[in-house]
Amino acid sequence: MKAHGLNPRIRKSPYFKSTLKYGATEFHPYNGMWMPVGYDTPINEYWNTIQRAGLWDVGVQRCVQISGPEAEKFMSMLTPRNISNIKVGQCRYIVMTNQEGGVLNDPVMMRMAEDKFWLSTADSDMYLWTKGVACYSGHDVDIDTPAVYPLQIQGPRSHLIVASLFGDEVLDLKYYDWMKAEINGINVIISRTGYSSEVGFEIYILGYERGDELYEAIMRAGKPFELAPGSPNRIRRIEGGVLDYGSDILVDNNPLELGMDRLIDFDKADFIGKAALEKIRDEGIRRKMVGVFMDGEIFQKNNEHRWTVFDHSKKVGEVTSAVYSPRLERNIGFALLDIAHDKIGTKLVVETPEGRRNLSVTSLPFIDPEKKIPRQSLRN
Amino acid sequence: MKAHGLNPRIRKSPYFKSTLKYGATEFHPYNGMWMPVGYDTPINEYWNTIQRAGLWDVGVQRCVQISGPEAEKFMSMLTPRNISNIKVGQCRYIVMTNQEGGVLNDPVMMRMAEDKFWLSTADSDMYLWTKGVACYSGHDVDIDTPAVYPLQIQGPRSHLIVASLFGDEVLDLKYYDWMKAEINGINVIISRTGYSSEVGFEIYILGYERGDELYEAIMRAGKPFELAPGSPNRIRRIEGGVLDYGSDILVDNNPLELGMDRLIDFDKADFIGKAALEKIRDEGIRRKMVGVFMDGEIFQKNNEHRWTVFDHSKKVGEVTSAVYSPRLERNIGFALLDIAHDKIGTKLVVETPEGRRNLSVTSLPFIDPEKKIPRQSLRN
Repeated sequence: MKAHGLNPRIRKSPYFKSTLKYGATEFHPYNGMWMPVGYDTPINEYWNTIQRAGLWDVGVQRCVQISGPEAEKFMSMLTPRNISNIKVGQCRYIVMTNQEGGVLNDPVMMRMAEDKFWLSTADSDMYLWTKGVACYSGHDVDIDTPAVYPLQIQGPRSHLIVASLFGDEVLDLKYYDWMKAEINGINVIISRTGYSSEVGFEIYILGYERGDELYEAIMRAGKPFELAPGSPNRIRRIEGGVLDYGSDILVDNNPLELGMDRLIDFDKADFIGKAALEKIRDEGIRRKMVGVFMDGEIFQKNNEHRWTVFDHSKKVGEVTSAVYSPRLERNIGFALLDIAHDKIGTKLVVETPEGRRNLSVTSLPFIDPEKKIPRQSLRN
Repeated sequence: MKAHGLNPRIRKSPYFKSTLKYGATEFHPYNGMWMPVGYDTPINEYWNTIQRAGLWDVGVQRCVQISGPEAEKFMSMLTPRNISNIKVGQCRYIVMTNQEGGVLNDPVMMRMAEDKFWLSTADSDMYLWTKGVACYSGHDVDIDTPAVYPLQIQGPRSHLIVASLFGDEVLDLKYYDWMKAEINGINVIISRTGYSSEVGFEIYILGYERGDELYEAIMRAGKPFELAPGSPNRIRRIEGGVLDYGSDILVDNNPLELGMDRLIDFDKADFIGKAALEKIRDEGIRRKMVGVFMDGEIFQKNNEHRWTVFDHSKKVGEVTSAVYSPRLERNIGFALLDIAHDKIGTKLVVETPEGRRNLSVTSLPFIDPEKKIPRQSLRN
């Protein structure tokens, strides 16, 4: 995006000015808003995320609010996950599915009150979907897009920074819990969530106007800890097995083939897509998202599109994301493969723009399968 | 967008390679796809559009298909417009509204068969909306996003180019009608529609694969007529009073305040938003979209955001789009104003990034109010 490409159709985040000031060199469109990226090289931002901490403007995670007397009933229809046991103060990673069991989004759901939920969404318009469903579902709910915009502070020093700014109470925040906080009269919601698989937080500002003040306050608090501005790190998310909606996940994917069985409760009375997913479960999935290693030269840039995977001359799937992991010192990625080829150790070939590479199937995630890193206690 | 900003999350149109070859210098995100722009200066592209013809890649107008035994009933619920009289072979400009009467999109609806409609959409996800509505509406319909991608050929020579490629039959195509055609085995739908308020056509390729072939065939056919690659021309659309979804129209706008009364049939049995729009009609609109002239220096670039309009010190509205019209030799634009200030000739002040300017209210559109230009007979 060049500066003259700015127009009212794609919104700026409340932190836009700060992100320019702190070195964003490029803006990616996401949910109708610009997401700042390119402060440093992806590899430098990667090391910063796993060794220190990064501040990421993810205001693009457009928040959809579902409220009203039947908010829980309605929310429960929107996701295969059992959400009845989620308490106020808790968040959950969920998928939302359509009538065919296709994945529409994979937001973080936050229970803000008994009768109020937030969806912190990936890149597809969940206002339109939920508002559409509500047309004739008969539930007494309101659907809104409140002016709340998250920042992420991610990395092993993130809790020290957040605690220095908002108090030590945040050190007691459990993984996927949220709390209210305030700084200089700026009200925020802090959740222990994020996109890095490291210790991390999201800070949701309530209201658009004071974004730059909050950003500056965090940068000041982070200075002793070498906090650096950055953006959601693709290398770290792929190492962590975190799928990206729109690139790894499309609407024609079902959660079973994506390995998201834990996000489905078939014992729930009903949810949109239940019958379709039961059928897929009973018949067996036909493809599977797996981890892959790819031989050869280090990948120097992101894959612009999906790469075809072959078993000899037969097309058996696609690599959806590929990147070089500096820590594993290997090219890694995700591939959606025909089910006959999903076994660990399977040898295949992938067609990249620089030619064919040998590929071998592995398990996901590449690092920290039990998520011990982000779940760890923050009190020593 | 820089080249390294490309990733699988935002799609390329089927004409992507051709648009690069023919000089697109920038890509705007729209409906999850890149729209190529910046082949020439906006003013050169403007003169080309009104004097000769331009070829625009608008593959971003993502097509949503509604089909099935109850397609007409369902489609009728989705829009305030009466569509029961629309025949196969016809298109209509419609608005789609939510439960509060807010505008969700303003697509061109095409009746492809008795039981099949296409929506050629503006920049918001009408797949998610219609798919959501269908969850519980009880209609027997299928909702899909077929692989069809329009190009626009717009300008006073456009019919000569389209006829030279597809035959003189297109000269009999009435304004807002469509027909099937074929070139070198590439099947297309041609409609007499577009975004220029000039004579113009949209050519929908059926299938993604052969986009570049079609683009090249059109460029060859257009050469004798000085066809030039370009993009939807903002100057011409503002002269023509064509509102842009996402910049001029937001979800909190109702069609009555946008002057779209002709798109509402209150006699219809029901449609989503009917009760809300009846209430707004009965109580009277509180603001109105108007045309405005703005004094002072020629605007050199697009407004990045809306500009506040004042009556003395009181905020009375916003300019949503502003541009310099080389033909009118004035700065023109749209403003959404409090209803007390909507009379033609009203004098107000607008705050621009370069300071305050005097503003006066005028009628819309600025040119050709009866759309005589695009409606004209193409047979001499």
